Amino acid sequence: MSEKVTEAVILAAGWGRRMGKRGPKPLLRVAGREILYRTFSSLRAEGIERFVLVVHPDHRADFEGFLKAHGLDARFVNNPEPERGNGYSLHLARDEVSGPFVLVMGDHIYGERFVERALRGEGLAVDPAPRYIDRDEATKVRLRDGRVTEIGKAIPNPDAYDTGFFVLEPSIFEVTEALAREKWGFELAEVVERAGLPAYPVPEEFWLDVDTPQDLRRARALLVAQAVKGAGDGIVSRLVNRRISTRISRLLVDRLTPWQATWTTAAVGLLAAGLNFVSPVAGAVLYQVSSILDGVDGEIARAALRTSALGGWVDSVLDRYVDVTYLLTLAVTSRLPEGLWPVVALALLGSVLVSYSTERYKAAFGRDIYREIPLMRFLPGKRDERIFLTMILVLMGLVPELFWTLAVITHLRVLVTLLLGARGETA
Amino acid sequence: MSEKVTEAVILAAGWGRRMGKRGPKPLLRVAGREILYRTFSSLRAEGIERFVLVVHPDHRADFEGFLKAHGLDARFVNNPEPERGNGYSLHLARDEVSGPFVLVMGDHIYGERFVERALRGEGLAVDPAPRYIDRDEATKVRLRDGRVTEIGKAIPNPDAYDTGFFVLEPSIFEVTEALAREKWGFELAEVVERAGLPAYPVPEEFWLDVDTPQDLRRARALLVAQAVKGAGDGIVSRLVNRRISTRISRLLVDRLTPWQATWTTAAVGLLAAGLNFVSPVAGAVLYQVSSILDGVDGEIARAALRTSALGGWVDSVLDRYVDVTYLLTLAVTSRLPEGLWPVVALALLGSVLVSYSTERYKAAFGRDIYREIPLMRFLPGKRDERIFLTMILVLMGLVPELFWTLAVITHLRVLVTLLLGARGETA
Repeated sequence: MSEKVTEAVILAAGWGRRMGKRGPKPLLRVAGREILYRTFSSLRAEGIERFVLVVHPDHRADFEGFLKAHGLDARFVNNPEPERGNGYSLHLARDEVSGPFVLVMGDHIYGERFVERALRGEGLAVDPAPRYIDRDEATKVRLRDGRVTEIGKAIPNPDAYDTGFFVLEPSIFEVTEALAREKWGFELAEVVERAGLPAYPVPEEFWLDVDTPQDLRRARALLVAQAVKGAGDGIVSRLVNRRISTRISRLLVDRLTPWQATWTTAAVGLLAAGLNFVSPVAGAVLYQVSSILDGVDGEIARAALRTSALGGWVDSVLDRYVDVTYLLTLAVTSRLPEGLWPVVALALLGSVLVSYSTERYKAAFGRDIYREIPLMRFLPGKRDERIFLTMILVLMGLVPELFWTLAVITHLRVLVTLLLGARGETA
Repeated sequence: MSEKVTEAVILAAGWGRRMGKRGPKPLLRVAGREILYRTFSSLRAEGIERFVLVVHPDHRADFEGFLKAHGLDARFVNNPEPERGNGYSLHLARDEVSGPFVLVMGDHIYGERFVERALRGEGLAVDPAPRYIDRDEATKVRLRDGRVTEIGKAIPNPDAYDTGFFVLEPSIFEVTEALAREKWGFELAEVVERAGLPAYPVPEEFWLDVDTPQDLRRARALLVAQAVKGAGDGIVSRLVNRRISTRISRLLVDRLTPWQATWTTAAVGLLAAGLNFVSPVAGAVLYQVSSILDGVDGEIARAALRTSALGGWVDSVLDRYVDVTYLLTLAVTSRLPEGLWPVVALALLGSVLVSYSTERYKAAFGRDIYREIPLMRFLPGKRDERIFLTMILVLMGLVPELFWTLAVITHLRVLVTLLLGARGETA
């Protein structure tokens, strides 16, 4: 499509009966955000500026309230008879678009990369091997020479699956006009077949539709799983912490804000430090628990499209304080020999400087050192690894050995970071 | 000028006799960089892509070597008779420009903001009150209705001063053509008067010309003075350190690279830490010396247009290590009571976390917190202030009090930084 697409029609007139009495499906919150918010957000990111919403008049007030709450704007088209089919819903929008436009289903969730790639096509976006939907329930297509020859739920051995995402020319309304003259109601499938619409593959990207409460739960789990950032994750995070934290995030993403998760995690960490005065063993275990919880705020924020630079900043400074406070109370309550205190001080500083060196890199270069220098990901001594090691050595009663080990690995890590950074920059 | 200016003619055929036998003036290094490099750099930053250099054939090899060494490109115009005047030099470039162009003198140094503003005008850029040149020696202009009516060195009570920076149309060559027919040689002043060239003011920006060895020294001092960054400077830096460091930078800017200055400063800081084992008083004084030297690498780098993100990053991590090592050796050699060690650890950590909190802000927001939240500049506890306080309290023998003070002010500062940052972000 040579002309830039800046308009979108979103079909949101369906009732979603299988979801129970929860209001219109596009306004359902999945992982902390309405489906429709996600659609608006990803389309706007790709340059779509004008939105047309086809809705049932009974729900119009709900949609208007949603748009107002998020400072969004759209024109409405009423469809008081959704039983006439989603082809007819599209037909009703015919006077509201002026150029090539995107057509999307209001109950589908699309990943950002899906939208980015799908917008470059022309016709119907299809997925040869969808990974996230119930294929039995899905609409299938048969293709020939890049065009749809057959579309429906009951096609055996289909060539691909209908993603519900179209890039169309206004000439599509000549087809809907003809169909509207012939019959009272018709589906998009009939429009597609009649138009002999081109189809283009958008494989291996995230998209799914939400039909049942089970779909909703699966969508939430997938959105949380995709929200794992992971660039700075150590081996303990990958093998242990993330497996637990994503389960917690799944439970909490619709109930907790990222800020609440950040403060709760910091509180648990400081509680672990305080526990050292009662039982260093209990403190060490709770410290590891706080390390697991530390993933939750970021996962919730990314899954719910609620990330903020402020949140990342405060979380990061709080992490440093939790580490410092925990190690300091551990050193105090362990009654270490006086001569060990310089080692304790070096271990504490090292734990801060590991983070300082990578964050200061980002401040200097505006880029993430883990993306820039992939070798960094394999360098041991990340926070999750240090905390896990701390728990193990405290449980074994090896507190002096712990401080020696931390002092050595953290400063070695900073040294290697500097060397890798300098090599990467001068190479 | 509606059309975008993308060409520049640089007059570099003069001999610069008053400078002694140092080769052509535009290739003189001032504060670590050739004058011509500065001109290329600031013009390229403003979108100039094609350069014409008018040079004496005897110097052409020098200029070619300079361009090659810096990966720059220019077309050459030979002027074997510079004694025919700089108006004639301009005339020789007539076949090499195709649209509106910048004309600059090869022995003038212009600040980046000067070039940015001067490029928006049309005709001759003039300065109503130049601050950095010898006004007696300068070329003056008299103006009427925005045009030059008189130009020369001997004009009493001039309206403004000739900056040697022009934005011209190719039609100027009709004027030089006429003059070339009339006389053997002519100056730019004659071209300006004959053309009745428009003049536009570019006041209060940095520019100067280099005629004598004294000019060279003054230019170097001014470039170093302008290279003080200062956003994160505390009161000790402003009142003491910068006054000394700029003098050192002036001496060293033509002799030392920023990297050499960075490593030397770090070595002096670590030497101060080592001195604690011999004499804490000497160590404290040398620590303050290293704090003064800490300004030199940045000043040299900015004055010589040699800043690098890598340099800033490494310098910043080294600073943290110098602080940590100094305070740690001070604590060890002062034989503090054991109960004070947690305070020592907090003081050390605080000194790192002050920097961590502001650098992590930049990593998160991509902006400098000192620019974003001006109140931050008045918050005490910056590195220069902590080091000065350290020296004073060590000289007074108050080491335990020093660690208490550092522990309290650094962590208070981090707390206030977080509060100000959060308020600025949510306001």
